[in-house]
Amino acid sequence: MASKSSKKEVKKDYAKMALALHKKLHGKLEVVSKGKLKTKDDWSTMYSPGVGAVSSHLAKHPEEAREYTIKRNTVAVISDGSAVLGLGNLGAIPALPVMEGKCAILKEMAGIDGIPLVLDTQDTEEIIKTIVHVAPTFGAINLEDISAPRCFEIEERLKEKLTIPLMHDDQHGTAIVVLAGLMNAAKVVKKKFENLKVVVLGAGAAGRAVTLLLIKAGITNVIVCDSAGVIHTGRKGMVPYKNNLAKITNPENVHGIVEDAVVGADVLIGVSGPGTISKRHVELMNKDAIIFALANPVPEIKPEDAKQAGARIVATGRSDYSNQINNSLAFPGIFRGALDRRVNAITDDMKLAAAKKIAGLVKKPSEDEIVPKVTHPGLVKAVASVVR
Amino acid sequence: MASKSSKKEVKKDYAKMALALHKKLHGKLEVVSKGKLKTKDDWSTMYSPGVGAVSSHLAKHPEEAREYTIKRNTVAVISDGSAVLGLGNLGAIPALPVMEGKCAILKEMAGIDGIPLVLDTQDTEEIIKTIVHVAPTFGAINLEDISAPRCFEIEERLKEKLTIPLMHDDQHGTAIVVLAGLMNAAKVVKKKFENLKVVVLGAGAAGRAVTLLLIKAGITNVIVCDSAGVIHTGRKGMVPYKNNLAKITNPENVHGIVEDAVVGADVLIGVSGPGTISKRHVELMNKDAIIFALANPVPEIKPEDAKQAGARIVATGRSDYSNQINNSLAFPGIFRGALDRRVNAITDDMKLAAAKKIAGLVKKPSEDEIVPKVTHPGLVKAVASVVR
Repeated sequence: MASKSSKKEVKKDYAKMALALHKKLHGKLEVVSKGKLKTKDDWSTMYSPGVGAVSSHLAKHPEEAREYTIKRNTVAVISDGSAVLGLGNLGAIPALPVMEGKCAILKEMAGIDGIPLVLDTQDTEEIIKTIVHVAPTFGAINLEDISAPRCFEIEERLKEKLTIPLMHDDQHGTAIVVLAGLMNAAKVVKKKFENLKVVVLGAGAAGRAVTLLLIKAGITNVIVCDSAGVIHTGRKGMVPYKNNLAKITNPENVHGIVEDAVVGADVLIGVSGPGTISKRHVELMNKDAIIFALANPVPEIKPEDAKQAGARIVATGRSDYSNQINNSLAFPGIFRGALDRRVNAITDDMKLAAAKKIAGLVKKPSEDEIVPKVTHPGLVKAVASVVR
Repeated sequence: MASKSSKKEVKKDYAKMALALHKKLHGKLEVVSKGKLKTKDDWSTMYSPGVGAVSSHLAKHPEEAREYTIKRNTVAVISDGSAVLGLGNLGAIPALPVMEGKCAILKEMAGIDGIPLVLDTQDTEEIIKTIVHVAPTFGAINLEDISAPRCFEIEERLKEKLTIPLMHDDQHGTAIVVLAGLMNAAKVVKKKFENLKVVVLGAGAAGRAVTLLLIKAGITNVIVCDSAGVIHTGRKGMVPYKNNLAKITNPENVHGIVEDAVVGADVLIGVSGPGTISKRHVELMNKDAIIFALANPVPEIKPEDAKQAGARIVATGRSDYSNQINNSLAFPGIFRGALDRRVNAITDDMKLAAAKKIAGLVKKPSEDEIVPKVTHPGLVKAVASVVR
C-alpha cells in the first residue's frame, strides 16, 4: 500500500489521532492563576483579607466588574449537545470536547479565556434560565451546537434578557464565513455577486442564518431546501420559521425536490448532512458551479466527486481540504471585538462587515483560495475592528 | 509615623494592595489550551474533523468523560453572592473575585482547574436547577458564600441529584479546619479534647457545620448562640434547623444571652460577624481560654483584645495573624482526593479524617501554631489521602 501512495497524499486517520491526543491531554484546557500564592502578602491580596475590599468596591460599583474580574476577557461556550457537529443529538458529555476545542481556538487565536459549559437539559426554558443565571461571570456568550428551531428562540430571547453580547456560532459564524467565501468565489468565476442564484440545502440553524445573511448582502435569488424538498410559500405543514423563510426566498416559486431547485443554480450550499449532495445535483447546475459542502466531519459530497461532476470551486468545513469554511475565521475576532468594545450585541451590520473584512484578506482569490487561512496575520484584529 | 513604627510591624493596607493587584491583573484567572494550534494536523485533531471521533466515542461511552475531557480535573466554584466573606449579601458580581481567588488556590495548591460561576439568582429552586444543568462539565462542585438556611437545602438536595461530589466549603471546609485547630489547641492548654466546653457564636452555615462536626468528633458540651441568644429546646420562633441544633446541643439547658453561655466555657468559636465578641465574654470563660474569631475580613474580636482579656490561644480567618483557620488547609486536598478517587460524595468520616491529618502535620503545637501553614509540604497529599 505504501508504495501505491507515493504519488498522492495519504489521508491521515484524524479520528485515531484525535482520540489518542484527547486521551493523552485528558482535557484540552487548563485554568491557571495569573497571580502567585507564595508569600503571606500574596495570600492577603489575592484572597482574604484583601479581596474583601474588592468585593465591597464592586458592591458599590458593579459596572467596574470588567476592571477587577475575569468578566473582562471571558467568554462562555455553551451547548446542550443537541446538534454536535454534523453528528446529531449526542447530549452534553459528547459535546464537551467540541466546546473545549472552541475555547482552545479562542485562546490561541484571540487571547480570550473560554469556559466550556455543557448542559444536561434540552428544554428551551431551562436553557434560557440557566444561561441567564450564569451570565454575570462572563463578558460574552457563544452558543454552540444547539439544534433548530430551539436555537432561534433561545438566542432571540437571551438577547432580550442579557446585557452582554451573545452569538450562536453555528448560525452566524457560519453565515459570516460562507458570505466571505462566496464573495471571493464570485470573483474567481467572474460572476456578479448579487446575480448569483443560490440553493441552500438544509434549513436548520446554519441554513437559515446563511440564507438571511446572503439576502442581507444583496443576493435576491436564494432557494432553501429541507428534507421534504423545496421551501415555497403555501407548502403544507411547515414550522413558522420555514414559512417566514418561504416569504423571503424562492422568487421564481420553484416547487419539488433538490433536483428541481439546482437547475440553473450558480451556487449550492450544503448545511445538511453527510452525502446529501449527489453528482447529479452538480451536473444540473450552471457552468462554473460553486459547491459549499459544509457538513462536518463528513461533507454532503466529497470534493473529488463534486469536481468530477463539473464544480469549479468546492469548499468544505474540513481543515484537510482547501477552502475550509471555518468558523474560526470569524468568531475569535467577533468576540475579541465584542469584549474590547464592550458592546452588548452583535448586529447584522457587524456580520456583513466581518465577512467583507475576511474576504478582503485574500489578495488574489483563486479556485483553491476563496478564504484566508486561520493563521493569516492580522485576521483577528481585522475582524475585531468591525465591532463598534 | 514611620519612626514610631520601628519596633512593631506596620499593619499593611491589604485593602489598598488588593484593589491595586486586582485592577492590574484584570481578573485572576486565565484559561489556556493544553494543545497547540499551529499546524493543520493540530487543527484536525484538536478540533474538526478529528474531534468528531471523540464526540462519537463519548456518545457510546459517556463514562469515559474523565479520560477525554476537562471533567477529570475541573471543579466549579459556585456562589449566589448571598453571603460574601463576612460582608453579607452583596450579589453575584462582588462574589466573583472571591470565587476567582478560590480557583487560584485550587490551582496553586492542588493543580486543580477551578471555574468560578456566580449566579444572578438567590432562589433555592433556581440555584439547584442551574447547578444540575451545568454539572456535566465538572468533576466536582464547590459551593461558596451561600447564606443559611438555603445553603443546607441546596447542598442536601444537590447531593441527591448529582453523581459528582459537592461540598459547601463555608460549612465543611471551615468545620474541618476548626476541628483540626481545636484538637491541637486542646493539647497546648493540656485539656482533654472530649471534655472541652465549647460555645459557638453564630448559627449560620459555618456555625451549624462546626457544631455538627465537633459533636461527631466526641465533644458533648456545645452551646450555640445566634443573634437572639442561646439556642435551647423550647425557644420560641426558631427555624427548623435551629430546633434540630437545640436537640443535640446545650446539655445543661442554658438559657439567656452569650454572657450566660460563656461562663465556664473553654472554647468560644465566633462564626458570626465583626465585633460580636467582647473582652467581657473572654473574661467570663475558664482559664486558658481558646478563642476562634473567624469573621472575615474583620474578626469578632481583635486578637490583641482577646489576649488582653485573658485568652491563651486566639485564631482568626486572616492570613496576617498567626493561627489562621484557613479553609485552604482543607478544600484543595479534599477536592484533589475527590477527583483522583472519583468518589461521588464527601462523607463525615472523610471530614473527621481530614481534620486529624491536618492537625497531625503540626509536630509541636503551640499557642501560635495550632494549624499548619498552607505552604506545609505534603499538606494537599495528606488531606487527599483521606478521600477513598
